[in-house]
Order: sequence, then C-alpha cells, then structure tokens
Amino acid sequence: MPESKRLVLRRLAIDTYHENVAYLHRDCPLYRTEGFQALSKLEVRRGKRSILAVLNVVDDARIIEPQELGLSEQAFEQLGLNEGDRVAIGHAEPPRSMEAVRRKLSGERLNQQEYRDIAQDIAANRYSKIEMAAFIVTSGQTGLDRDEVLYLTRAMAETGERLQWDEDLVADKHCIGGIPGNRTSMIVVPIVAAHGLLIPKTSSRAITSPAGTADTMEVLANVEIGPARMREIVHAHRGCLAWGGTARLAPVDDILIAVERPLAMDSQGQLVASILAKKIAAGSTHLIIDIPVGPTAKVRHMRDALRLRKLFEYVGDRIGIHVEVVITDGRQPIGRGIGPVLETRDVMQVLTNDPKAPADLREKSLRLAGRIIEFDPDVRGGQGYSIARDILESGRAAMRMQQIIESQGRAPDAPRPGRLHFNVLASRSGTVIGIDNKNLARIARLAGAPMDKGAGVDIRRKLGDQVNVGDVLYRVHAEFPPDLRFARELCTQNPGYEIGQAEDMTMYSYGL
Amino acid sequence: MPESKRLVLRRLAIDTYHENVAYLHRDCPLYRTEGFQALSKLEVRRGKRSILAVLNVVDDARIIEPQELGLSEQAFEQLGLNEGDRVAIGHAEPPRSMEAVRRKLSGERLNQQEYRDIAQDIAANRYSKIEMAAFIVTSGQTGLDRDEVLYLTRAMAETGERLQWDEDLVADKHCIGGIPGNRTSMIVVPIVAAHGLLIPKTSSRAITSPAGTADTMEVLANVEIGPARMREIVHAHRGCLAWGGTARLAPVDDILIAVERPLAMDSQGQLVASILAKKIAAGSTHLIIDIPVGPTAKVRHMRDALRLRKLFEYVGDRIGIHVEVVITDGRQPIGRGIGPVLETRDVMQVLTNDPKAPADLREKSLRLAGRIIEFDPDVRGGQGYSIARDILESGRAAMRMQQIIESQGRAPDAPRPGRLHFNVLASRSGTVIGIDNKNLARIARLAGAPMDKGAGVDIRRKLGDQVNVGDVLYRVHAEFPPDLRFARELCTQNPGYEIGQAEDMTMYSYGL
Repeated sequence: MPESKRLVLRRLAIDTYHENVAYLHRDCPLYRTEGFQALSKLEVRRGKRSILAVLNVVDDARIIEPQELGLSEQAFEQLGLNEGDRVAIGHAEPPRSMEAVRRKLSGERLNQQEYRDIAQDIAANRYSKIEMAAFIVTSGQTGLDRDEVLYLTRAMAETGERLQWDEDLVADKHCIGGIPGNRTSMIVVPIVAAHGLLIPKTSSRAITSPAGTADTMEVLANVEIGPARMREIVHAHRGCLAWGGTARLAPVDDILIAVERPLAMDSQGQLVASILAKKIAAGSTHLIIDIPVGPTAKVRHMRDALRLRKLFEYVGDRIGIHVEVVITDGRQPIGRGIGPVLETRDVMQVLTNDPKAPADLREKSLRLAGRIIEFDPDVRGGQGYSIARDILESGRAAMRMQQIIESQGRAPDAPRPGRLHFNVLASRSGTVIGIDNKNLARIARLAGAPMDKGAGVDIRRKLGDQVNVGDVLYRVHAEFPPDLRFARELCTQNPGYEIGQAEDMTMYSYGL
Repeated sequence: MPESKRLVLRRLAIDTYHENVAYLHRDCPLYRTEGFQALSKLEVRRGKRSILAVLNVVDDARIIEPQELGLSEQAFEQLGLNEGDRVAIGHAEPPRSMEAVRRKLSGERLNQQEYRDIAQDIAANRYSKIEMAAFIVTSGQTGLDRDEVLYLTRAMAETGERLQWDEDLVADKHCIGGIPGNRTSMIVVPIVAAHGLLIPKTSSRAITSPAGTADTMEVLANVEIGPARMREIVHAHRGCLAWGGTARLAPVDDILIAVERPLAMDSQGQLVASILAKKIAAGSTHLIIDIPVGPTAKVRHMRDALRLRKLFEYVGDRIGIHVEVVITDGRQPIGRGIGPVLETRDVMQVLTNDPKAPADLREKSLRLAGRIIEFDPDVRGGQGYSIARDILESGRAAMRMQQIIESQGRAPDAPRPGRLHFNVLASRSGTVIGIDNKNLARIARLAGAPMDKGAGVDIRRKLGDQVNVGDVLYRVHAEFPPDLRFARELCTQNPGYEIGQAEDMTMYSYGL
C-alpha cells in the first residue's frame, strides 16, 4: 500500500471497554474515498499486525487530525505499535466466527469448535458490541441446548489463565446471587480451611448489587493479590478470600456479562456457562452451588431451580468438576447488614460466636460448610454439619480467618457504618409477610454501597416478625447527604416491606 | 441535586451515529462515587431536558476534564443546551419499551402500541447499540409474524416526515436490491411521467453496493433537493429522481439498517417493513416491487420470493398502498455498466434509442413502466407495455428526462469512465454459465465506486454468450492506481465468471 494511503497512529485515551473504536477526522482523505459508513468496521494494519475496530467520525482536529488514525485505549494496546507509526486501513471482513452466529440465529446448533472460534474472536476484541449483542441474544433464553452450554463453558474457560493447585481436591462454593447480605463465603472458607480442605476462594466485586464478597472482605483485608502470592497464602492456610479479577480467569465471560447486563436477559444457559467457566479456570474440583428461590430472588419458582440444577450437574460432570447444588430460602436477605461494613459485622459476629450473631447467616454457612467438608473422603456422609459447627464453636474458624486476613494484608482502618442515617418505620401493625430483596438492594446502592463501604441497610425485622406501628424495620446508613436523600426518596416510594396477616405469607419448602 | 453533583457540559465533536455517548474523565468525582460501569447507561439532565447516553471513560484531560461531561454530537444536539451549562447525571433506567423487547425475546408477540413505543424510543436515541441489536435479532428471521411486520411498518413510518402530493394516484417502484447495474428507475420515471402519472421518486445512495439510483442520477443532475423544491419539480414535470435522505422519511429505518448491516441478517419481515415504511412516508399510493431471484441475488429460491410477495401484499393492503410484486431474473447484472458513470451511459443509450443500448435493461424497464402505467384507470389491462414502448421510441421519455435534469440542476461535468483500466479475459472457451453478482459488485467497489463516479465494471459477455480463450469478459475502470490494484487482486482470485457447457446453466422461470 503506498504511503499516501497510510495514516499516522495516535492513542486516544478513551476507554471503550472491549469494543475497539477507531477515530477518523471527517476530512481524512481515506474516510472520503473509501466510503466508510457510520458503524463501519475497519481493519487497521501494519505488516503482520492487525486489529478490527468500529469507526467513529470526529470533527475536531484537537481530538484527531485529518492525517491521523486514533485508537481507543484497548485497541491501541492490542495493536502493539507506537504513536506516530504509519498504519493502513481498509474495510474489514466480519470476524469469521460471525458466520456461525448467523447460523445460530437461523436456528442451528453449533459445535464445540464453533464456540471456541467465537470465544477466541471475542477475546481478541474482534467483535463489535452489535455482534456481541447478537451472539448473546441468540444464545439466550431457550437458545442453547445443554451440550451447547457445555461447549460454551469450555470455550470461555480456554480464553484466559488457569490456576494450578497440584492437589486432588480443590473445594469451592458459589451462589448464583440476588440475595442481599448473603455473605456465607467469609464464614465457610475459614471453617473448611480449618478442617484441612483446600479452598482458594476467588470472588467478584459487586456489579449491580450493593456488595460482592470481594468488596466486603476488603473491609478487613487486601483482596487484590496476584496468583503467585495467592499460592503462598493457600499453601500456608489452606484457604484465602481474594478478588478474582487480578487472575484474568475466563475474560470472555466478563466481556459478555458487560454486554448482557443492560439487556437484563434471563438465560439459564449463560448463567451456568459463566459460573462454571470461571470455576474451571480457578482450578476447582469440588463445587457447591447455592440457588436461592423466592418471589424477589433471581429464581422465582422451584421448577426453574430444579431445571437449573440439572443443567449445572450435566455440564459439571462433563467438565470434570464434582458439582452439588443446594436450593435455599431466597425470600429475604440473609443476616442483617446490606453493604460491605454492615455485612462484615454480621460475619464477625458469627465467627466469634457472638450471641447477637444473625442465626440465619450462621445456620446457612454451617450447612454449606458441612456439605463441602463431606467432599473429604475421610468424612462420613451426614457428619459434615457437626464437624463444621465444632470448628466454629471452638474458635478455630475465627483464628483461621485472622490468619488469612494477616497474610492477605490487614486493612488499615477499623470498619464503621456510614455516619449519616435514618430509620424506616412500620406504617401499620401486623406480621412481616414480605421483604423485597431487589428494593432493599437498590436502597443500599443509592445510599452509596459498595463504593462507600459504610453505606447500606441494617435490617431489624425479618419475615414472620410481629411489628407495631412505628417500630424500626431497618436503618439506612450513608456517608453523604445527597446519597441519604436519594435513598430516603426510594424508601418513601417503596420501603420494600409488606406487613399483613401471618397466614398470608408465601410458603416454600427448600432443600436445606 | 446540589451543585457539587453537577458537571460542566461540553460538546465533543465525535459522531457516534445514533448512539448517544457520554464521556467522563476517570477522575471525575461522580464517576467514582456513583459506581458507573463500562457500558453503563447514564441519564443526563437539566430541569426538564434529559437524554440517555452510554458511558465512555476518558483518561486525557485534553479531551475532557474531570469536572466536565462530554457528549457526542448527536447527543449534544438532542439535549439542546449550551456548552458550559451545568448538568446532573445519574444511572438511567433502560427505556421503558425495552421491557417489550425482552418479552419478544422470550417468544411473545407484541402489539401495535408496543412497536410504536419501541420506534419512538429508537428515534429519540434512547436505545444503545446493544439494545438496538437485541431488538433486531429478536425480530429477525422467523421472529415477526405478518401482523407484527404490519405494526413495525406503521410504527417506523410515524417517526419521521411525510410527503404530501394531493393526488389520488402517486406511483412508485422499488427493487429489493442486490443486482448490479439494475438502474431501471432512471428509465421508468421519465416514461411514466411522460404518460402523465405522478411519480416523485426518492432513492437511496449505495450502502454496500457500487451505486444507488441517487449516486447514478447525480452523474447527470443535483439530487439533493428539499421537499419544497421537489414539489415544484413534480408539479411541472410529473416526476423527479431525488435522493431520499434530505426528506427525513422513516428515520428509524435508517438507524436500524445501520445496526443490521454488520450482522448481515436475512430477515424478510424487516425488509418489508423497511421498504413499506419509507413508501408510506413518501406518500406513495401505487407501488411496483421488483424481487430479483438468482443464485447470487438477495433471494435465491423461488419459494422465498413467493413468501416475500405474500408478505408485501398483506402489509401493503393494510397500510392502504396498492402493491404489485414482480419476480424477475436476478441471475446476473442488468445492463453492462456497474458504477455511476457506466450505468448512466447504459440508461442514456436506452432513453435515446441507441442501437447499442443493452436490451435487458431496456426490456425490463419497459415491462416495469408498463405495469405502472396500468395503474392508470384509463389504461386497459395489458396495454401498459406498448404505451411505454411508444413513449420511449418517440423520444418523449428522453425529452422528459432532460426536463427533469434541467429542473433538478444539471451536473457541471460531462461524465467519463475512470481513466485507468484493465481487462479480465476468459481463461477457457465455452459458454458463460454463471456470473456472480456479489463478486462483480465487490470488484466495482474496490475500483472506487460509488465515490469515484467513473469507477466500476463494464461487462462485455453475459449469460449464454459463447467465448474463446482470451476474449474480454469485462473491463474494470478506476481513477487511482491503488484502487485498480485492489480490484485486480480480487479479479485474479475470483473473476466472478463461470464458463462451461450451455446445458449446465441454471434455469429459472420468472413472472416477467
């Protein structure tokens, strides 16, 4: 290609997530002669290096000049050249695996190789947001049969790093989410590690919830520890509670989640593939999955929970992970606190056998820990719960938690709830017959969680409790007045509590 | 909202097409405390004005400073405020009509009001590209039943302007596309107008093809004429050949096409809704639809063409447009030239009754014009063709074309084919049994069409012709050496011609 068809490369410090964006000035001679369109996909190349990018057109030479080609940050990194290098551009062919996506759109099943090609193209930022959205929509809902879920799981796991533990039994637990305050991992990990099983737990930060386990653990300790340091800690203490983001596990999953989130699609296949791909990458061999069911949980009906359980089991068996699914009570938050600091308080009350500890959080954690302990071939079926309880009551779990905190690096500040607060009161007398998980989560987020660690909701009354007019249902904490006001506005519109007659309470029966 | 939660508005001269994009500096205090994510959707507001926008994060204060909020061009226009105004931002709820899209995703049918809400939200730039892609995918393929196609057609037509003609019979024609050189409109319009029917033709520019009718007509005359001037011209001459883009007809259709194009989805429902929405907006009452069928046409099988015809008829009847569908031979390009100047030459040869005029272009144009003339209640069924032929042979069509050209504004330069060229030769002797429409279109585009008006392909041999080794199959014209070389590379890989035994030629039977 002659020099006249080349442009001067520039890095534009714009973060467009995993969509590569190229910026051309409207007066760029190549923009005019090549007939690029809005949303056109370009190939940018120099020698053997090449990337695909979506075109944005710029009218301001202070951002990009007519002889320049700007690339968003990730695109610039990926191309791996220097500012000032001369690059060629041309019309890009769509990534080859889009052909498979189109066949999927017209109702075909895809095979393992096709899912691999799709995952690799997405990992290489060769898909635009439009193309990713097409893939997600077509594989959503009833779009994937269970073998396709398996193929997608494997394909996503293969795109990133993989943690190695050199042991036969690497235990793990995962909750599909949706229940505020459900911070069982911080209790389960020290119990299971104290028993002697390996449990190197990686957790996520909150995306749409008021706290992820990584956000809450961060109140007590550093959670951003690389794979090498994680191995040392796990070698010493049999467990850890780290943020999974540093390890680059199944990165395609993160990309797809970012595109999926705004669509709020409810796809069992993608949920299973997303969770299990991360677990393959994390090196887990034995896994407990917690599926909470309730009217405001992610899974609202027992039949859906059962279908989801079968799918976890089917894929788990074929990827060589021993998966056990427990279906739990998801009608209301677990524990009292919602938000990192308030949840930490609940966790530490349970670990220190404080009489004020929330009984539901303690009980659920012991049951989950007991199930994991029974993965140990030396433990008789049915004895896990009492072993877990002994470890907790003897103080060994609390001690193990302190060791894990010290080795990850203790947080400098003592946790305290947000300095501003207000109470939400019962407007009538009766029995609490409904608590809206989603609304309490939104109130906690508006109050500032998880960014403001002390912000959130502190629950005083739970399902089945008797209340009189004016009793405190929960207290909202925030750090800043505007946040407090936003949260209060939502509480006024919808406090998230239903008070009525005890016999009107929805009843479920659960596996736990 | 307190002043501390406000940002200073700035217009960023970046064209992101119909996706509103907001730019925040990574150190913007609101970005940190509000917990926005990559691809988060923000609401930007001041008083009652508000827009939705997708977030891009910027690390360069020369592009945007921490106290500023940048908006892409269309987003800034839409908000309608001034640079320096203080605006508030917050997490946006998804546009309300996305709820309907989600229900469509899970297999439900949507009603007229739901399609209206979706079209209005898209027209108001409230959808992100991800959300638009979800809508397109879910309504693609077999996703729309025929009533839903009707609802979508009406909804799209209602989002833009509408041309008014104050006559009972406003004729129009439309080809679904895919056949290079198929420039019948430039012959049909002067014939029909000379007969006396009103035919105010609005056409598109090429998107992925080497020439749209607007690009080709532009070789002869100005095509960017606003609705008022168009009325004057049509009042004087009963017809025109204008670019449709100035009239803002069914703008949602253009937005959806831009998102749909990279997906290369094949959706009959969207095709019909797209065409008929534009025709409602253009004020057409009587419409001929041309569906070419052939192995490298948009429609490859007669059964698909018949299904498409039924769908056009169903929707046409209900929106009050008299639609007649003709299924035509789409096995090869029509005429000889591909590219604006070369196609103009063919058109003018037909209009001036030049003996060298391509017979297929002449014949097809006469048949289409004849069918339109039969919309005239005073014309007996079956007489349209001979009326059209009389108008053409008498020179009245050519004269009408000159009047239309003069009134739209004659182009200053005489057309000439691209100054560079090479010939593509037959590599064996035999009969031409296949010509690949798509490949010839790509060659013409690589050579520079439609931006370089003289670039393109000039065909010398067509289906059924005998050729000897070394005979010229076609000639490629370009203006610039690199373009010529790109085109030549593709010709070497795949010249787009199949030469074999006459009896191997695919046979079709057509409605025309």
